[in-house]
Amino acid sequence: MLTIRRLDLNDARILLQGARARAAEIGVPMCIAITDESGQLIAFERMDGGKVTSATIAIDKAFTAAAAKKATHEYGESSQPGAPAYGIASAIQGRLMVVGGGLPVIVAAEVVGGIGVSSGTPAQDRDVAQAGIDAFLATL
Amino acid sequence: MLTIRRLDLNDARILLQGARARAAEIGVPMCIAITDESGQLIAFERMDGGKVTSATIAIDKAFTAAAAKKATHEYGESSQPGAPAYGIASAIQGRLMVVGGGLPVIVAAEVVGGIGVSSGTPAQDRDVAQAGIDAFLATL
Amino acid sequence: MLTIRRLDLNDARILLQGARARAAEIGVPMCIAITDESGQLIAFERMDGGKVTSATIAIDKAFTAAAAKKATHEYGESSQPGAPAYGIASAIQGRLMVVGGGLPVIVAAEVVGGIGVSSGTPAQDRDVAQAGIDAFLATL
Amino acid sequence: MLTIRRLDLNDARILLQGARARAAEIGVPMCIAITDESGQLIAFERMDGGKVTSATIAIDKAFTAAAAKKATHEYGESSQPGAPAYGIASAIQGRLMVVGGGLPVIVAAEVVGGIGVSSGTPAQDRDVAQAGIDAFLATL
Repeated sequence: MLTIRRLDLNDARILLQGARARAAEIGVPMCIAITDESGQLIAFERMDGGKVTSATIAIDKAFTAAAAKKATHEYGESSQPGAPAYGIASAIQGRLMVVGGGLPVIVAAEVVGGIGVSSGTPAQDRDVAQAGIDAFLATL
Repeated sequence: MLTIRRLDLNDARILLQGARARAAEIGVPMCIAITDESGQLIAFERMDGGKVTSATIAIDKAFTAAAAKKATHEYGESSQPGAPAYGIASAIQGRLMVVGGGLPVIVAAEVVGGIGVSSGTPAQDRDVAQAGIDAFLATL
Repeated sequence: MLTIRRLDLNDARILLQGARARAAEIGVPMCIAITDESGQLIAFERMDGGKVTSATIAIDKAFTAAAAKKATHEYGESSQPGAPAYGIASAIQGRLMVVGGGLPVIVAAEVVGGIGVSSGTPAQDRDVAQAGIDAFLATL
Repeated sequence: MLTIRRLDLNDARILLQGARARAAEIGVPMCIAITDESGQLIAFERMDGGKVTSATIAIDKAFTAAAAKKATHEYGESSQPGAPAYGIASAIQGRLMVVGGGLPVIVAAEVVGGIGVSSGTPAQDRDVAQAGIDAFLATL
């Protein structure tokens, strides 16, 4: 039998708040999704002005980061033409995201969840996702 | 051009809080989703212990209630065998929900959003969704 | 080789106009879709106030009526529990509609297209779809 | 609560007419789709000779342009191999279009809808979409 550690709803809210605060700071209304370690959604918010398309994309970035235990921008590199994971972007009916903005949430070297952010540039999305993780890790 | 009124993120949080408080009161951890008037997700929470299947179901109940301007339990009645809307439950790739727990959010006779709840019995889900709406309407 | 007769865009517009006029008459803003004899979309309109969910449903009713050469309400009857086509409603990823409001457009005993209507009751949807066909046949 | 402005059906028809006139001028029968600001379909026409595949593509271009508030050809640039949004083309089950021909409809710096065109080259599609927008803006 396995014992799994995962984010609870309160953790998810702290991740959301940290990300939202950073999004407000840089002036980009974002869609922000938090999943557990299996990639299942725990919490989501679309800030006023966040893009409709970004709801699905944020959820899928968090899903990918948690369930594949890898930041989505790392897939961006390994899925370029000629690289080993080329073509992975359309896997799982397009849910596997290779665009930056999805990060695994790691505690004691274990993936306990994922955060996905979308509506800005991939660099902004990643920055805001990292701010969520920083806020969460500061509470441990 | 049309002018439309819809829930903002702050409204969505009030709906979530009202529903969550009622879920805690009856002791059933729920998935709760809030959409805008077009059925697009604004906010979501899965309470600790909420069902994984219920994440999609709650989102689709809120989508149906808002975008079809009708409570999902009303579709439950009109889609029984022999009733006029029989078969509607599998429409839109199964997103059209006919199980109770999805309610339109109505302000001044206009649908401005939807709330969907899942993890309990359909009666519990509907009760919790209504509590979210009651909490929101009390702030207006 | 086969020679096929199908609606052209001008025919589709006449069908749309006839349906829209009847929808206005009964005071129900509708989604109205016209397909060719293969079920492929030619024209679509969502009247102001038509339901967002009904866009897909209208398109799928027209698709079903044309491509299966059968009114959707006839499937409603034959797909009841215990009837021969029971379960057909979820076929084709839920696109096969068994709710009234989809009618084949028939000229000289040949299906040349389909019309699908949604947003009212199934009886209203069917009435409005028939009005579209009547307007078209009057021009032949 | 938010107050949103969106295209009505009459606006959508003007966009369609403007696009259709330009398509006729260049001799390319097109599929043309108009959505509201959330990416939901308002109106669609497939001109006689327009491609069957282009119905979905035109609808998805309009959806992308409106819901992501960005022209689809801009995604074409930012999603090239090595560029930041590489891989975004398969997001949302492939609905996120990065091929030119989808434009947001902007009034007073606000996205109020989208237009998507398909059947020609991407450059022709974009030209025809722009003609639709020009016709609409001339009526304001």
